[in-house]
Amino acid sequence: MRESIIFDTDPGVDDAQAIAIALAHPDIELLGLTTTFGNVEVETATQNALLLSELADQRIPVAQGAAVPLVKTKYPAPAHIHGANGLGDIELPRVQGRALETSAAQFIVDTIDARPNEVSLVAVGPLGNLAAALQLDPTIVKRVKRVVVMGGSIKEGGNVTPVSEANMFNDPHAASRVLTAGWPLTLVGLDATHRCVLSPKDMEAIAKGQGRLGEVLAGSYGFYSDFYREFLGIDGCCPHDSCALAFLMKPELFTTATGHLSVITNGDAEGQTLFAPKDRPFIDERWSRNPEVDVCLGADGKGIVQWIVDTLK
Amino acid sequence: MRESIIFDTDPGVDDAQAIAIALAHPDIELLGLTTTFGNVEVETATQNALLLSELADQRIPVAQGAAVPLVKTKYPAPAHIHGANGLGDIELPRVQGRALETSAAQFIVDTIDARPNEVSLVAVGPLGNLAAALQLDPTIVKRVKRVVVMGGSIKEGGNVTPVSEANMFNDPHAASRVLTAGWPLTLVGLDATHRCVLSPKDMEAIAKGQGRLGEVLAGSYGFYSDFYREFLGIDGCCPHDSCALAFLMKPELFTTATGHLSVITNGDAEGQTLFAPKDRPFIDERWSRNPEVDVCLGADGKGIVQWIVDTLK
Repeated sequence: MRESIIFDTDPGVDDAQAIAIALAHPDIELLGLTTTFGNVEVETATQNALLLSELADQRIPVAQGAAVPLVKTKYPAPAHIHGANGLGDIELPRVQGRALETSAAQFIVDTIDARPNEVSLVAVGPLGNLAAALQLDPTIVKRVKRVVVMGGSIKEGGNVTPVSEANMFNDPHAASRVLTAGWPLTLVGLDATHRCVLSPKDMEAIAKGQGRLGEVLAGSYGFYSDFYREFLGIDGCCPHDSCALAFLMKPELFTTATGHLSVITNGDAEGQTLFAPKDRPFIDERWSRNPEVDVCLGADGKGIVQWIVDTLK
Repeated sequence: MRESIIFDTDPGVDDAQAIAIALAHPDIELLGLTTTFGNVEVETATQNALLLSELADQRIPVAQGAAVPLVKTKYPAPAHIHGANGLGDIELPRVQGRALETSAAQFIVDTIDARPNEVSLVAVGPLGNLAAALQLDPTIVKRVKRVVVMGGSIKEGGNVTPVSEANMFNDPHAASRVLTAGWPLTLVGLDATHRCVLSPKDMEAIAKGQGRLGEVLAGSYGFYSDFYREFLGIDGCCPHDSCALAFLMKPELFTTATGHLSVITNGDAEGQTLFAPKDRPFIDERWSRNPEVDVCLGADGKGIVQWIVDTLK
């Protein structure tokens, strides 16, 4: 089935891989890239978004958004993971185009308004842009086709704190707004993405198939997988953000459950996503007060990686 | 190795099984039972503690403690799980003895003072008594032999909220005090206890071996396992509290890790135990600020149940 999407992103090495998929997949219409701080500063995210589509000889609208979290103080961008330039500190070609004048949030609202019930939002960074779009027009929840969020963790534990995944930790207040907004949403978190490892051999196949874009993907992958090797003992990397697109196009590769999410916004658990399965009683009602969403509890990691490679080779 | 213990408890069906073990095991010297609210009101816990030792023809000192949490408002006791009388609402013999005049906290301090470095605390309810003992004399952390706490959950999820285990939820402030006190402590939580199922056949063997006490264990087990069948789809019950004693006597049946615990004291994650493995870096130091403890991450469930049955049959 053809999907028309806005891809909300903070590229970032694994974001770049996902953007390449969104640009290459015959059944994905990429309506725009909206950018946020996260893996990099927002200005860098915007430059990278422009560059990556140019390297694929496409001109995708790019709208810049959140520079900082809604409420909390921003942490420095993780240059040791993605490089200071977000793409593994490799040398990058000059960007030709420029971002829209419109903010990311306004772009999201306008695009959904123009094509009601046809646009899916795929968000793979901190959720400030989606929260800001909901602030501009909360009724978009009724006109969006679906929302897929890469972030959070149900049983897998966290990657930046013992319980919190980086996107949720980076803006927990935005995450709380977005994950409880009452729109048709699926959370693709570490319980799924940690099942997937993109190996050096996979990246070789991708690099061959993607021309100039492939060089950037392979170069940045090298830097990113150094981090995985040193800190996590993994030969390869988890293609976190590509998993959100894999879920959109191949949901049968994921195990999901329906229930209620709450996001912790402060204290030592900040950024944690709490999941109360539908119809499971707890000590009181409070964990089931939020609208129903779907969460991924597992995934066919090999199948997802195969889909990524098949799309990009 | 012989262990001299104070058993801090809120009996409670699975507490009763554990008390039977503490009374029966040849290598456990049961110095006293200290009681708290939790599965039942504290007065009921005290009566049950007295009764259970009397049914085994022993007179163990019983010291009553916390009637309510340190800070938060108390929830009603879960009569649908343990019965209003804590022992499955079966008819119970009359209690002969009575509790000490001393409070649970003072009893803990006095007992440790009398036998420095020889006494282990095994706590299987909300942790108010241990917190109160630390308030009376914080130096007991240097004179206790070891502390084993049944409670919490690292990756298993919660049993009263999506992330919180009942003992921790019932008094998160006490739990925070106790789990970060800097004494030699092991947390035996749902990651271990959910691996164990005490079956009806196991209970039959236990009932045969325990005389009058066995009748109470078997009767209360029937009520408790009705809850497991209806709400959790399990034929049998998890012998949560016995696992704390199993850890003390047979630590080789458990998988553990060393690191830092934080306890969330409010908000939707209240009662959650956050575990930061030793030497694992997170986004900042805050999750590693507390003293090192051990936590159970898994267990040989069959081996533990076999140990329980062998001890009681």
